[in-house]
Amino acid sequence: SSKPEIVETKHLSMSIRERFQMILKEKKTNLCLSADLPSLDEIIELSKQIGPNICMLKIHCDILNDFSMEKILQLKEISRKFNFLLLEDRKFADIGNTVKSQYTKGLFQISQWADLVTVHILPGEGIVEALEQAAQSINEPRGCLLIAQMSSKGALTDNEDYVKGAVQCAKKYSNFVIGFISQSRLTTDNQFLHCTPGIHLNNTGDQLGQQYVTPRQAIDGRGADILIVGRAILDSINRVKTAEEYQEEGYRVYEQLRHV
Amino acid sequence: SSKPEIVETKHLSMSIRERFQMILKEKKTNLCLSADLPSLDEIIELSKQIGPNICMLKIHCDILNDFSMEKILQLKEISRKFNFLLLEDRKFADIGNTVKSQYTKGLFQISQWADLVTVHILPGEGIVEALEQAAQSINEPRGCLLIAQMSSKGALTDNEDYVKGAVQCAKKYSNFVIGFISQSRLTTDNQFLHCTPGIHLNNTGDQLGQQYVTPRQAIDGRGADILIVGRAILDSINRVKTAEEYQEEGYRVYEQLRHV
Repeated sequence: SSKPEIVETKHLSMSIRERFQMILKEKKTNLCLSADLPSLDEIIELSKQIGPNICMLKIHCDILNDFSMEKILQLKEISRKFNFLLLEDRKFADIGNTVKSQYTKGLFQISQWADLVTVHILPGEGIVEALEQAAQSINEPRGCLLIAQMSSKGALTDNEDYVKGAVQCAKKYSNFVIGFISQSRLTTDNQFLHCTPGIHLNNTGDQLGQQYVTPRQAIDGRGADILIVGRAILDSINRVKTAEEYQEEGYRVYEQLRHV
Repeated sequence: SSKPEIVETKHLSMSIRERFQMILKEKKTNLCLSADLPSLDEIIELSKQIGPNICMLKIHCDILNDFSMEKILQLKEISRKFNFLLLEDRKFADIGNTVKSQYTKGLFQISQWADLVTVHILPGEGIVEALEQAAQSINEPRGCLLIAQMSSKGALTDNEDYVKGAVQCAKKYSNFVIGFISQSRLTTDNQFLHCTPGIHLNNTGDQLGQQYVTPRQAIDGRGADILIVGRAILDSINRVKTAEEYQEEGYRVYEQLRHV
């Protein structure tokens, strides 16, 4: 496959926030596929098919039985070709010094390939400061999404102070923090994208505390900009067709309600 | 090296809590070495030297540039030989379904070798329930430590409700939860071990939000049972001698104050 030189150059001159906004508008999609699959080979194949329909691909590198830097860089190239972002859903949750190593080192070297990572603000602002520092050694735009709220039952993020802390931190580190993983609209500052997981058109939950909402409920009731859809697509008979449905429904409601 | 059959058998018939208590008393050490090093080879060598002085070895498998299942199983064998526990400081912080995969799958297969893992209760109790379920497929005792408090500046764990949530969860899942990562005594129920990081005899902090206390401050003021010591040992000129010092000082104060 030929290297997509133009996209590559264009994206390097943009901030990660500008790039995300451009992808949304150009591709008319606010769909993030949560590819919780055990095989990176399968994710690579799937991303070639679903690439046109998504603005972001969310993965967990540490559940992959066939992870290698070679394969993940292949996925990165596909993400450039089809113009979507790679989100490593690491949920960083340690002190600054440790997350720096977790972000840049080890077998995964996350900072080499993940445009975005997810971060818990539980340990305090030092976690974001450390990641932003570490990202400066990378020659590409990098950013993060703060986990402000979780969809699981009995989550201890479920209080005002926690959410306030997340918003405060996002504003302070707004070059690196481009949005939230959230269950409701947290701020009127629209530079921050609200990303909501647990989306399903016809399901109510699983046995381990996960609770679902529909795309309309997510965008309208929960203030989502980006819909994170996993099992609804992965478990469907025709994944591409289902992804198209979520893209269309999601972006239609998004345009309507956010007046983009 | 010959396989330590006796220890192996003995440990399999005990719960992870019983084994931990036995190690403390038999080895007269409440020192946990936090081996935040980039090389598993180096950790293996170090653990052969420091093995007699520690009750637990804490690692971050995802910062190791030379991780392999072969090497980590070597470390596991050393931990059996010298009778200390292996703690993977994963700080699990996702929904139940995801942590199950992160615990058992991927390149690390944590559940295969880590006696204990650290867990944030931020996502709700489902996280502990999921890990306990996943551990049942392992033919060895397994457990976890709940992160009830963090030592970093501005940590959002720093409120009563959060700590209450942790204690409640520990009591509910007391077969799997054997203690806490904490900064103070959280419960009078002494079946739960309080493990405190950020211990240093002569340092006050780093540039990324980490704050230090001495062994006496930790055990007395902060109610620690187990001292998690990292850079104080790793950065010392003679690591073994320094480990011995922390073991002696730590266990002396521990015996004195906990009347063990």
